[in-house]
Amino acid sequence: MAETSAQTPAATAPVVILNAPQLAENIGAVARVMANFGLSELRLVNPRDGWPQERAWASASGADWPLNAAKVFQSVSEAIADLRLVYATTARPRELQLPILTPRRAAADLRQATADGLRTGLLFGGERAGLETADVALCQAVVTIPIDPRFRSLNLAQAVAINGYEWWTFALDAPPPAFRDGAPPADSATLLGFYEHLERELDAAGFFHPPEKTPSMVQNLRSALGRARFTDQEVRTFRGVVTALSRGRGKVLEKLAKKKAGEEAAK
Amino acid sequence: MAETSAQTPAATAPVVILNAPQLAENIGAVARVMANFGLSELRLVNPRDGWPQERAWASASGADWPLNAAKVFQSVSEAIADLRLVYATTARPRELQLPILTPRRAAADLRQATADGLRTGLLFGGERAGLETADVALCQAVVTIPIDPRFRSLNLAQAVAINGYEWWTFALDAPPPAFRDGAPPADSATLLGFYEHLERELDAAGFFHPPEKTPSMVQNLRSALGRARFTDQEVRTFRGVVTALSRGRGKVLEKLAKKKAGEEAAK
Repeated sequence: MAETSAQTPAATAPVVILNAPQLAENIGAVARVMANFGLSELRLVNPRDGWPQERAWASASGADWPLNAAKVFQSVSEAIADLRLVYATTARPRELQLPILTPRRAAADLRQATADGLRTGLLFGGERAGLETADVALCQAVVTIPIDPRFRSLNLAQAVAINGYEWWTFALDAPPPAFRDGAPPADSATLLGFYEHLERELDAAGFFHPPEKTPSMVQNLRSALGRARFTDQEVRTFRGVVTALSRGRGKVLEKLAKKKAGEEAAK
Repeated sequence: MAETSAQTPAATAPVVILNAPQLAENIGAVARVMANFGLSELRLVNPRDGWPQERAWASASGADWPLNAAKVFQSVSEAIADLRLVYATTARPRELQLPILTPRRAAADLRQATADGLRTGLLFGGERAGLETADVALCQAVVTIPIDPRFRSLNLAQAVAINGYEWWTFALDAPPPAFRDGAPPADSATLLGFYEHLERELDAAGFFHPPEKTPSMVQNLRSALGRARFTDQEVRTFRGVVTALSRGRGKVLEKLAKKKAGEEAAK
């Protein structure tokens, strides 16, 4: 990790993920500010008008490389699957119990994670819809740009610019040594696999009632567990916990029931 | 909106002066970020395509008031005549012996000057030509946005946004937002009660094997969960999760076993 990050800052800079971006011009403007602030990896989740689009290149003023290499995904969870620290930029208050950070504090965290060799990302919502709470729940914190409450309509590229600026400015300071000397946090795909395992078992156990509350219950479980930043080993351990709880007790009762059945049959 | 913004912070916020702006869309985008960051007074020096221009309003996304009140001047010197501290934003090195400041340092100075009752301004060059050295020389310092030297082409509105953001952030001058603005983390007794509940169920499910490893397995579970800093509500939720997993699935199997037992007994 140290070797690659020594080559160019961009190699380990946060990935910029745009969820459902609408205007190609804005995607191009995002690429331009990414280039201004040392970011290079762009991922697009369901761009409204498809991809690629010429108008994006036209508005990037020569910052073509993030656009040329941009990857398209079908869902936020796929787009962040390989990332180990993802912050969602949103101004809307959420029901989630996630830390709310300024761009400056977020940049410090992202620098630290990068110094620790972790792949990171910044997730932004589309121009109109922003982010679904279910997608925010997959992230480890929310970044909220301090803004005049009398006029909150911030352009997408401006939101990327402010975060990119803080990331780049922070570069001037060398981060202190790694804060965690053990294993890194699991990537998002691993976490999602664990969440889905837990939720399947909870569903089988009749935990989600009333049914219409399932999405918000799921989001609350995910965001609360996400804060722990489990390692791969810990995810395996907690998958074992879920399995043990859902199957183990079952087996105990199964045995008891069999024993009883045997006794009754013997009568 | 306009009434309040005339009274409070905006009344003494720095004036934004655009020298020879070319595209009306960029003037509108500047108005929009001004509104985002509590700036309201806009001055235009020789806008290329004249003034007013409808396209500026169209691209301001409702931030009309800086455009409605914008004043046009024939020269930078006229545009800054009544201001007592003016900083020029430019990335080009100059022959001038002026301090070169970051946007953060500039914001601190502008705040101080404002607190001292001085009218201040931020001067920006047009998209192509930037600023004449003669105009920079009328200013008290140069503001240079830290930027990746590999791609220096910063959009005009982005330059205003970064400076506005620093101005606005400095205004708050408050400690960073609380880690969590909802409920506080649960106390240790509550957490311990949850841990013990989980561990009882895991023990009943035969999770801890070999038995001599139980203490270290327990410690690993506890420390991983502890990092999430669950609230009281979340502890209740996760106790429900444990109960649901250990009883719910058990019940399903219990019913199956009973059914089987009934069938066998009926044979």
